[in-house]
Amino acid sequence: MRSDIGVGLIGTGFMGRCHAIAFRTAAAVFPLTIVPRMEAVADVNLSAAEEVAHRFGFARATADWRDLLDDPSVGVVAITSPNVLHKEMALAALEAGKHVYCEKPMALSLADAREMAAAAEASGVVHMVGYNYVANPAVIFARKLIDEGVLGKIIHFRCVNDEDYMADPSVPYSWRCRRDTAGSGTLADLGGHAVSLALYLAGPIASVSARVSTVIAERPVLDGESLTRSGPPNAASAVTRTAKVENEDQAVALLQFENGALGSLSSSRVAWGRKNYLAFEINGTKGTLIFDQERLNELRLFEAGAIGDDRNGFRTVPMGPEHEPYGMFLPAKGHQIGFNDKKAIEVARLMRAIAGEIHPYPSFHDGLAVESVIEAIERSAAEGRWIEPGTLAG
Amino acid sequence: MRSDIGVGLIGTGFMGRCHAIAFRTAAAVFPLTIVPRMEAVADVNLSAAEEVAHRFGFARATADWRDLLDDPSVGVVAITSPNVLHKEMALAALEAGKHVYCEKPMALSLADAREMAAAAEASGVVHMVGYNYVANPAVIFARKLIDEGVLGKIIHFRCVNDEDYMADPSVPYSWRCRRDTAGSGTLADLGGHAVSLALYLAGPIASVSARVSTVIAERPVLDGESLTRSGPPNAASAVTRTAKVENEDQAVALLQFENGALGSLSSSRVAWGRKNYLAFEINGTKGTLIFDQERLNELRLFEAGAIGDDRNGFRTVPMGPEHEPYGMFLPAKGHQIGFNDKKAIEVARLMRAIAGEIHPYPSFHDGLAVESVIEAIERSAAEGRWIEPGTLAG
Amino acid sequence: MRSDIGVGLIGTGFMGRCHAIAFRTAAAVFPLTIVPRMEAVADVNLSAAEEVAHRFGFARATADWRDLLDDPSVGVVAITSPNVLHKEMALAALEAGKHVYCEKPMALSLADAREMAAAAEASGVVHMVGYNYVANPAVIFARKLIDEGVLGKIIHFRCVNDEDYMADPSVPYSWRCRRDTAGSGTLADLGGHAVSLALYLAGPIASVSARVSTVIAERPVLDGESLTRSGPPNAASAVTRTAKVENEDQAVALLQFENGALGSLSSSRVAWGRKNYLAFEINGTKGTLIFDQERLNELRLFEAGAIGDDRNGFRTVPMGPEHEPYGMFLPAKGHQIGFNDKKAIEVARLMRAIAGEIHPYPSFHDGLAVESVIEAIERSAAEGRWIEPGTLAG
Amino acid sequence: MRSDIGVGLIGTGFMGRCHAIAFRTAAAVFPLTIVPRMEAVADVNLSAAEEVAHRFGFARATADWRDLLDDPSVGVVAITSPNVLHKEMALAALEAGKHVYCEKPMALSLADAREMAAAAEASGVVHMVGYNYVANPAVIFARKLIDEGVLGKIIHFRCVNDEDYMADPSVPYSWRCRRDTAGSGTLADLGGHAVSLALYLAGPIASVSARVSTVIAERPVLDGESLTRSGPPNAASAVTRTAKVENEDQAVALLQFENGALGSLSSSRVAWGRKNYLAFEINGTKGTLIFDQERLNELRLFEAGAIGDDRNGFRTVPMGPEHEPYGMFLPAKGHQIGFNDKKAIEVARLMRAIAGEIHPYPSFHDGLAVESVIEAIERSAAEGRWIEPGTLAG
Repeated sequence: MRSDIGVGLIGTGFMGRCHAIAFRTAAAVFPLTIVPRMEAVADVNLSAAEEVAHRFGFARATADWRDLLDDPSVGVVAITSPNVLHKEMALAALEAGKHVYCEKPMALSLADAREMAAAAEASGVVHMVGYNYVANPAVIFARKLIDEGVLGKIIHFRCVNDEDYMADPSVPYSWRCRRDTAGSGTLADLGGHAVSLALYLAGPIASVSARVSTVIAERPVLDGESLTRSGPPNAASAVTRTAKVENEDQAVALLQFENGALGSLSSSRVAWGRKNYLAFEINGTKGTLIFDQERLNELRLFEAGAIGDDRNGFRTVPMGPEHEPYGMFLPAKGHQIGFNDKKAIEVARLMRAIAGEIHPYPSFHDGLAVESVIEAIERSAAEGRWIEPGTLAG
Repeated sequence: MRSDIGVGLIGTGFMGRCHAIAFRTAAAVFPLTIVPRMEAVADVNLSAAEEVAHRFGFARATADWRDLLDDPSVGVVAITSPNVLHKEMALAALEAGKHVYCEKPMALSLADAREMAAAAEASGVVHMVGYNYVANPAVIFARKLIDEGVLGKIIHFRCVNDEDYMADPSVPYSWRCRRDTAGSGTLADLGGHAVSLALYLAGPIASVSARVSTVIAERPVLDGESLTRSGPPNAASAVTRTAKVENEDQAVALLQFENGALGSLSSSRVAWGRKNYLAFEINGTKGTLIFDQERLNELRLFEAGAIGDDRNGFRTVPMGPEHEPYGMFLPAKGHQIGFNDKKAIEVARLMRAIAGEIHPYPSFHDGLAVESVIEAIERSAAEGRWIEPGTLAG
Repeated sequence: MRSDIGVGLIGTGFMGRCHAIAFRTAAAVFPLTIVPRMEAVADVNLSAAEEVAHRFGFARATADWRDLLDDPSVGVVAITSPNVLHKEMALAALEAGKHVYCEKPMALSLADAREMAAAAEASGVVHMVGYNYVANPAVIFARKLIDEGVLGKIIHFRCVNDEDYMADPSVPYSWRCRRDTAGSGTLADLGGHAVSLALYLAGPIASVSARVSTVIAERPVLDGESLTRSGPPNAASAVTRTAKVENEDQAVALLQFENGALGSLSSSRVAWGRKNYLAFEINGTKGTLIFDQERLNELRLFEAGAIGDDRNGFRTVPMGPEHEPYGMFLPAKGHQIGFNDKKAIEVARLMRAIAGEIHPYPSFHDGLAVESVIEAIERSAAEGRWIEPGTLAG
Repeated sequence: MRSDIGVGLIGTGFMGRCHAIAFRTAAAVFPLTIVPRMEAVADVNLSAAEEVAHRFGFARATADWRDLLDDPSVGVVAITSPNVLHKEMALAALEAGKHVYCEKPMALSLADAREMAAAAEASGVVHMVGYNYVANPAVIFARKLIDEGVLGKIIHFRCVNDEDYMADPSVPYSWRCRRDTAGSGTLADLGGHAVSLALYLAGPIASVSARVSTVIAERPVLDGESLTRSGPPNAASAVTRTAKVENEDQAVALLQFENGALGSLSSSRVAWGRKNYLAFEINGTKGTLIFDQERLNELRLFEAGAIGDDRNGFRTVPMGPEHEPYGMFLPAKGHQIGFNDKKAIEVARLMRAIAGEIHPYPSFHDGLAVESVIEAIERSAAEGRWIEPGTLAG
């Protein structure tokens, strides 16, 4: 028997829309026992909420996100608001007894994330954080290869998450540039994704050494633009002054994993030409695995001694139905899923966790582990010494 | 104002499921004036129909596809049944005054396709054929580059559509191997997609020279397997005999375009390692463009003199919101759409055509042009001489 | 014991220089029993001959190539003159009892090539034609994989040789544009290389169907420029008129191999962006092999069932010492040889053939087979029907 | 007028052979004013010395390298002996007034390298260290792009030098595993190359933070195998015990450049599948540049705003005659040089420096800068803190 659960979505930006699509797709393509029912959308901009509700089939829209918490027909709250609001909303939703699906990063500070994780653990509801790249079948398959010993013991993990959305100095000042609205810079936005892959694939990180820099020190301020708004400037806006960017444009870090593996991490929001370059290379004692999210449907795998050495080399492995859960979308190999499908996989996990079939991943607990590493990177950069994330997680 | 139209879906296989997802996704991500409403699913296997109806939100299921035609709540019929049934169903749907969205190939013979196109032209309804790769934003962008003259005059078009789903000789005999159920072999299944790209990008084909071959002459017959069924064999099936494959495993053809360009086409269902290798290279007097559906979110473009020659080379152009309609799915470049999204773009075209906003493409008329080229290739292979598709289209 | 043999080199252009480097390199890196001794260089431009002699260590220079034939210290003649001169020089060298190493194409017409091959067969000396891409370790390894059955039975061979050196319409009229100085166009210059790979890897070609076209019908004539000269125009030259290009800029052909495999060939000298795109894809009943000379140190190989299907994919195999004779140049895999090294491999073959250790390949007999296919392609294009190269070779 | 200079080569291994080829090739393909004359080869194994002398045209062979220093016909000494011998030989050669061309690393310790650099500076002769990858035309072109401002201000430099030649735990214990014969492990062998590129392209390094690890702690000892010998074991050898590996298999480091750029470096000799993966990515404020020595003839370049954004992307730029000094080897773009050609470019620099035409690069002074960074990486790894190479160089 199938039952359903009402979804309350907060936010209608890139991620709000993305969640809406993912809930719809997951409901159709996965054989879920509990199916999401589009119940309500909240956005301070009511007409945006109404438009999304209409388009994606939500029953109603509201300008007040607290309405969702009071509504008994809403069982799960999806939080895609600006990062500065995550904590307040998540805590309120937990308090209201709703399952919580919160976009990353969890909060602007590690202390806040810790508070959220503690509340979540205490709540008894299902909680998840949107580090969605771990839901890519290629990444799931990478983990399977590791678990099955195909790569041998993991000895090295190198990862990068670079984009260029702020590489142009004329990109205006926004909430992303401020400590009080964004927390860290590229680390909060992109670096956390790389950390989520590192933790998922190579395990806990014992210690980090890092350095960061702000490449574009000042950016133009557009009059009349809200600081919580991202995206292209309003054409009517006039630039009359600049403001100081308060957080880092790029970061580099060394990673010492608990299992002895070495690693490194780079993250940049000013790396020209990169659009979604979330990439890793894993070396093990039996093989090497390479991935790049800009070609999300393939892995490059080298296995020592897989075949005669004169015929050996990196294999480009295309994803297919044998790589779960690709087959939910397509029965044919190499036909390719997209970014939104990956988000639907995340939602399907959420639904299955709500149904008690699996443990949610990444939970607030897992999200906290990511934020701890990010915090350790920031502190290491500030203090010029190795920092152990484990000493920060509280 | 938005209105809706009832969808009647025939078939629940790969393409049936794919249509169901596409209708749902298109309804949400595109700002349609006429929105698809999931009305009914038909499949001779009623439980399959019921399962799809339940999963994808159709109001009801039936074992008799003719029910859809009698149902006034159904406005558009999507035909994803085995190829042998396309003609009968399409003609009946047209007769019933429904809009028709028919999977490719249109029919098993050119004569049948011609009859279907004539009926469609006479009908006054909207008709489309599922040559969906022309709906990929990368392909649409390729056409835009050509139309804008970026490549100059087109002088060469080379295309391939290779897969390996029948490369293993133990893949059993099926309806795909028979003339009376499949018509041609790789040409009907894969070659038509390559032709659809050729016609869309390089224009009408004046003449072809071709050769085909059947690589695996006989295949094992599985007892108890229906000939209309494809997919992996039932484990309980026993092989007691083999049967002769009646159509081609691979084909090669030269293409003489009306505009003077030369070209070639290859198609194979027995090309090991290829999964969805629908690829083309276009040479123009000002540049070259390369595409491969196995990396569907990128194009490789060379422009003569775009920059100083010592810095020139093929650019790998990632798709993004500036390549319509990628932006309907994602606001960020390089994040990638998937196969199913491309099919949703096709459905959105269908809906917009029904709303009278655009001409449908590819219509039955366009589909007939594809089938004419395929027929010309088959005849050329049989007769060992150049054949003009234009003389076959009736 | 090692002995040596005097080399007489005719021509000092791209290929003349390339031969000079190759003789020097081969002498050092290969353990030859007969070593080339740089004896003399001939060029109508005596100062060019002297410069090359000085640079590459030849004992003397001459303006008259016939001097080499009269010289008993010259044992082998390397012919790198303009194509129109190959026949006369090769016949004279054979007549003089010299071993002959002639650049491709052998001659401007099949009749001439046939005469040269007959003279060579009758001569008792060693004769080779410079279809050097068959000497690439990657190509030799491809042949080995085929011979060992790794690919199974060959069913398809697709090849291309595209460059863009005449894509710009301002490239001036030259000897390459004339029938009486160049014979065919892209077929003679580039297409023959593709044919040489086809014959080497997939065997004799039974029949071809082809079409050709001249994209740039007229080219500017530079006053004061010799028609036998290629390369960039003299800056002082003034364009006062244009002349009609007499041969094809591009060609496409279907190939029916004697062993039943199908194939196709494209060749263009006007394909923007391509610099040395000599590429092939071979499908066999057990695997697929892909090569591109623009990345000459690697092959892409797919083997059916090499490993579990969820880990299978095309392997990028880097060349190394296990791929003969790469190890003559470098003991370390993946460090890469260059174009000139490949030519040195060809020269080493020549030397070993002179020492009686191996059969020369490609001999004038093998070269004639290439020219026969080129001639068949030209005739097929002219007559619009399938042509059997075997009926042309005399 | 051209003169010549006698070359005395010490060592006949991979690099000895490679130098021999390079001297011969450079003499022919470059228009040098001072040309190398093959004078003598020294190796403790006299028959190896004789074989190389014979093959590569050296006038004589000796078992005692000091013979070269006493020989007035030798003007330049090339040192390719095991690393442990570099210092003694280089100092003696400088003392003897010979020009010195020493393979990398300069020595086993920074103190030794410093002593060598000081002696070299005081000597008045030409001195060079074999960090040859800076001589690749692609790398030279990368530097040119940076110098011309095409990338804007450099903000990030990520580099890797990974191979897998010791990834197999059965690779026996050798001199490479010992501090007293090799100094550091992957850093001395591979990491130095990455550092040489970092210094050449992004400038001096102010500070590093690093960590290293030895993955395979013990390796089998082959009886009867010399510790100074590398390469595959003698088949007759029996393994009776293992010995402890004394230096690192892999290293990771953060790089703080003096110009403000951040960076990272990885080096491994146990990274399965990598053969010559010397790779870098440079981000500047105007573009990004990517290189991988495993495809040594191409660069990937992204330039912000080079063309309309919908057509922009990374360009794969093939090397050609416009990228100096590629044209010395080949007049045609995309035809590709090899590893040995790159070494010939290094030798040509040496010859031109001896002729007084250019400053030698990398000189012993430049080599010392590399060794200082390597030493800083080692110390940082040992001490767990940031180390400034500048404080180490003496």
